[in-house]
Amino acid sequence: MKIEKRWITSFAIICFIAIASLFWENKNELQANFLTAEAINYADVAWLLTSSSFVLLMTPGLSFFYGGMVGKKNVISTMLQSFISLGVVSLLWIVVGFSLAFGESLGFEIEGKHYGIIGNPFDFMFFDNVSSLPHKQLASTIPFVLFALFQMKFAVITPAIITGSFAERVRFISYLLFICLFTLFIYTPLCHMVWHPNGLLGSYFGVKDFAGGTVVHMSAGFAALAGVLVLGKRKNSEHIPTNIPFVLLGTGMLWFGWFGFNAGSALAANGTAAIAFATTTLASASAMLTWIFFDRLNGRKVSALGACIGAVVGLVAITPAAGFISIPKSIFFGFIAAIVSNKMLYWNKLKAIDDTLDVFACHGVGGIMGMIVTAIFAEGENASLLHGGWSVFGHHMTALGLVSLFTFLGSLILYKVTNWFIPLRVSEESERIGLDLSQHNEKF
Amino acid sequence: MKIEKRWITSFAIICFIAIASLFWENKNELQANFLTAEAINYADVAWLLTSSSFVLLMTPGLSFFYGGMVGKKNVISTMLQSFISLGVVSLLWIVVGFSLAFGESLGFEIEGKHYGIIGNPFDFMFFDNVSSLPHKQLASTIPFVLFALFQMKFAVITPAIITGSFAERVRFISYLLFICLFTLFIYTPLCHMVWHPNGLLGSYFGVKDFAGGTVVHMSAGFAALAGVLVLGKRKNSEHIPTNIPFVLLGTGMLWFGWFGFNAGSALAANGTAAIAFATTTLASASAMLTWIFFDRLNGRKVSALGACIGAVVGLVAITPAAGFISIPKSIFFGFIAAIVSNKMLYWNKLKAIDDTLDVFACHGVGGIMGMIVTAIFAEGENASLLHGGWSVFGHHMTALGLVSLFTFLGSLILYKVTNWFIPLRVSEESERIGLDLSQHNEKF
Amino acid sequence: MKIEKRWITSFAIICFIAIASLFWENKNELQANFLTAEAINYADVAWLLTSSSFVLLMTPGLSFFYGGMVGKKNVISTMLQSFISLGVVSLLWIVVGFSLAFGESLGFEIEGKHYGIIGNPFDFMFFDNVSSLPHKQLASTIPFVLFALFQMKFAVITPAIITGSFAERVRFISYLLFICLFTLFIYTPLCHMVWHPNGLLGSYFGVKDFAGGTVVHMSAGFAALAGVLVLGKRKNSEHIPTNIPFVLLGTGMLWFGWFGFNAGSALAANGTAAIAFATTTLASASAMLTWIFFDRLNGRKVSALGACIGAVVGLVAITPAAGFISIPKSIFFGFIAAIVSNKMLYWNKLKAIDDTLDVFACHGVGGIMGMIVTAIFAEGENASLLHGGWSVFGHHMTALGLVSLFTFLGSLILYKVTNWFIPLRVSEESERIGLDLSQHNEKF
Repeated sequence: MKIEKRWITSFAIICFIAIASLFWENKNELQANFLTAEAINYADVAWLLTSSSFVLLMTPGLSFFYGGMVGKKNVISTMLQSFISLGVVSLLWIVVGFSLAFGESLGFEIEGKHYGIIGNPFDFMFFDNVSSLPHKQLASTIPFVLFALFQMKFAVITPAIITGSFAERVRFISYLLFICLFTLFIYTPLCHMVWHPNGLLGSYFGVKDFAGGTVVHMSAGFAALAGVLVLGKRKNSEHIPTNIPFVLLGTGMLWFGWFGFNAGSALAANGTAAIAFATTTLASASAMLTWIFFDRLNGRKVSALGACIGAVVGLVAITPAAGFISIPKSIFFGFIAAIVSNKMLYWNKLKAIDDTLDVFACHGVGGIMGMIVTAIFAEGENASLLHGGWSVFGHHMTALGLVSLFTFLGSLILYKVTNWFIPLRVSEESERIGLDLSQHNEKF
Repeated sequence: MKIEKRWITSFAIICFIAIASLFWENKNELQANFLTAEAINYADVAWLLTSSSFVLLMTPGLSFFYGGMVGKKNVISTMLQSFISLGVVSLLWIVVGFSLAFGESLGFEIEGKHYGIIGNPFDFMFFDNVSSLPHKQLASTIPFVLFALFQMKFAVITPAIITGSFAERVRFISYLLFICLFTLFIYTPLCHMVWHPNGLLGSYFGVKDFAGGTVVHMSAGFAALAGVLVLGKRKNSEHIPTNIPFVLLGTGMLWFGWFGFNAGSALAANGTAAIAFATTTLASASAMLTWIFFDRLNGRKVSALGACIGAVVGLVAITPAAGFISIPKSIFFGFIAAIVSNKMLYWNKLKAIDDTLDVFACHGVGGIMGMIVTAIFAEGENASLLHGGWSVFGHHMTALGLVSLFTFLGSLILYKVTNWFIPLRVSEESERIGLDLSQHNEKF
Repeated sequence: MKIEKRWITSFAIICFIAIASLFWENKNELQANFLTAEAINYADVAWLLTSSSFVLLMTPGLSFFYGGMVGKKNVISTMLQSFISLGVVSLLWIVVGFSLAFGESLGFEIEGKHYGIIGNPFDFMFFDNVSSLPHKQLASTIPFVLFALFQMKFAVITPAIITGSFAERVRFISYLLFICLFTLFIYTPLCHMVWHPNGLLGSYFGVKDFAGGTVVHMSAGFAALAGVLVLGKRKNSEHIPTNIPFVLLGTGMLWFGWFGFNAGSALAANGTAAIAFATTTLASASAMLTWIFFDRLNGRKVSALGACIGAVVGLVAITPAAGFISIPKSIFFGFIAAIVSNKMLYWNKLKAIDDTLDVFACHGVGGIMGMIVTAIFAEGENASLLHGGWSVFGHHMTALGLVSLFTFLGSLILYKVTNWFIPLRVSEESERIGLDLSQHNEKF
């Protein structure tokens, strides 16, 4: 078997990173940005260690959520696409991703104030300056390295979410290239703009995103949409889920992990974390029930698959708002997101483009709905329509439009670039025999 | 397809709750019952956030434990029955359940002292008065909302445990109605009577239940027994477990989650939690081995299924005692519960009624055994036979009898009521083709 | 069916332990070794409760990792072999194992200093003297019982790791006997020699083992090697993994649990734990990618199985070093271990002996590689070649040789002893029909 150059390049890159990491001498130069060890709250450390672990488990969880839904010939390949992100994005994150996301703001001035588009890639390269001390602005009670790890797990799962849309037809190595590009050019700038204290979307537009409704779910949803448009429909798009217990398992793992995701985003073991925990579980419960009852009203049977998708849509929708709203409102968040996502999922225009596992309808639409209701209800001064008026709301909606455009068009371009290097779509024959066999020589 | 009125009602209810939650203005009137934020111990918060997540994972865990044991045509329906409790009971809990369980005691006076039967439903309706501050009596070092969430996960799993008994023949919508009734009329009063400081069973009878041996396992066990009596035997009750690895997975998830259940019930990250952790894992280990060796002595092969059931029986039995006994005694708890449960499981009278997955033999009997040995060995002043004498023990046994009657007869009535609204049992044809297809149009 | 004496003996032993535990009065005599409750750091308690739970989950995780890889007729038996260790070793640990591992050093003097080979079996028998107070030397900020539990989970998983090597041909009851012997005569002395403050390997040879590279992985790897040599090849050693999603699930659970294993080994929720978390996830990520790219360079397809094995090898390799190195170096650890393990796995000499699931190539070699690179790079005074020179390195390599010999020859002898009592290998007929049916009368 001839080894294609793309694999030699891949191996060369991992060799290069490994050797570089061996000789890299970590700098420690930005002391002014850090507090002393006394500022550490060890209870927060305990919770963040825990919640980072929880978020890690979401990626295998997602692999089961998706893997159970696809056809029998594509189970393993679909699962591996999620899984491999734990390898690729983790490494990318330490090398330069974290720095791009949370390094010192590079951007421009508006009315004398600096707004960031992306972080300085050299600040935290190979975790330079990322030590056990807490960072004054980003996470003032936990070791900065723990913040970097917690954020790493978010970066890891985002590309994994996308995979559901082009399942059963994407080439593995092209996918690897795409997620590198996506992480570098979509995820990290978006993360910077929303969550860095000087980020454009957070500080200029006032966007509220507690745990990643925009950064993770909207971006993945739009990247998914762009993906199906570039890759095109499957040859055979009939859809019989192979293993529904896997979907249930995946949902359980996701729900469990989401407590790390949302309650962990308080960055502390405090009341806000507890409230985020409450809103998370209630939005999910509410969306789960709404979805199955709504299905039934529309003449479909109540199904385990529906319950699972509903639960996940609820989790997506509450993500941006988790710590910003009063607890009962979370029930409404889940309810409204479930109905809109359900409608979208069965909308024939979306059905026509063959987003295999309805990533856009669930994560994209769920994320958008979450952002909209957050922009209506979030509590705090000038936080939302109800607590700041139409001008605040207008700002948020403008930002939402910009994010949609950025993530959709950006992803579209990156798919084209990827496709130019290595074709994204497998051959017809490979698709016919299924990706498990054609890409990995494995069988479920 | 005509949509039955019961589904329209279901959707109407979820709509009503969602809208109500949107406009609900949370009251904050019971300040006298709460401490200030300074009373919070953040390490306890970290552990309770964690253990609440662990307990959530038990419900999917249970769905695999049960789902792997049933026949191939009923795997998904059985799993969904556990899973859906995460939706139904979570919502019920915030709306009124938590208030019924832990609101101000409604009850009567005995010798001038007030004893509670149930909580005031208006105290914590939609989590009114449930804030980030700690409650003086119920959980004085963590936000009250976190206590409410931890307890929520207990309420969620209890009905899920019941499902094993009438698996393969119950109608999904009737089951949903039943678990609502069960939660409101059996679980919440029992929880109040055992765990509220003024509860009748806890404060008058002196019942000790560290983590829910009575509240969760005995109640589920007796409800299971009542259930099979009302629903009757399956048409075809041969029993070939479909997927034993699922049972192993479920057992692993349950064991893991049980550390949250038992060690979390210390409501603090302290020595008691560590001791509860120890007793939990040792009772399970001991029961697992006892079960398989005892099986072998009785001419059966050592089986993975036996190991799993044994482990779970051990976990059930140690639950009421977890933090109340010296560590080595937990080995005896597991041992004796395994032998009695094993005997009951193979007792032909119990076999005859067709409790599909032996819920009564495992959870009912395990719970009873746990309560009895707890009533013998629990440490502390007047805590048990050995530390208080026969009168204390007599009180506990009276309480045990009352709980058995209450949960069994109460459940019996609720099944009858449910059956009167919607027949509990599916049609013969539906049972023949299996619930997966007939109820959910899905297939494993 | 005639019941063999070995099963009667097994039941008698569990009866004896249960009764003994009931009447055991825990001593509390070593107060001088303990601090008061004020020394407890409750945040550390929260994290250690959590990480002990995480480590428990690794054993079911391993059962899926292995169970998915074996042939269809041996899935359940392979899984049960891991699982049952949770029963056997947990009990052994409380009875005498913990005492052998961490009791007062029994050993000899070298140049006037006492070096321990094994702990005094009576110090902590049935958890005598194991209370809620922190131990001055072993874990000064958490209840000693929690330390004992955390260590218990390590002891549990070690024999489970071994099972992969002789899968599909070992007799269940012989295996139970072997793991008892292994725990008593290999694991506990090794644990003592490495981790007890007076242990020979740790204090005389200066071996650094942060979280069990030597104690857990090397010992399991060499026991696995000895096992296949004693048991011999399978009759039919063709190898088609039955269920790759199970392998992926197991890998996810292992990765998740490993955060407890490694970051928990800091015995505190602090910066070291966070750094250990970072090195753990990065070594795994790096090894996963290295493995699949290296596979591809060697003409094999990129496979999910390869990604999983690679990830686990990375986790093994970083274990001894997790908290001792700068973060980027972990990438190199994963990289080099993946290449060497991959080479070994496909080495025809190793293939010839039929180590079913390549335990030696993964855990043995991974552990050795981890120890070697740790001995080169570990930071701290006289910790390694780069921070102490060749003499330090020489000491470590001598120790590595001694450990290899001890674990390999020791296991060899214990297999022979076991074999003398009960034949280790099942009959040809039993092997042909598979262990699931022949040992457990169960079927996947």
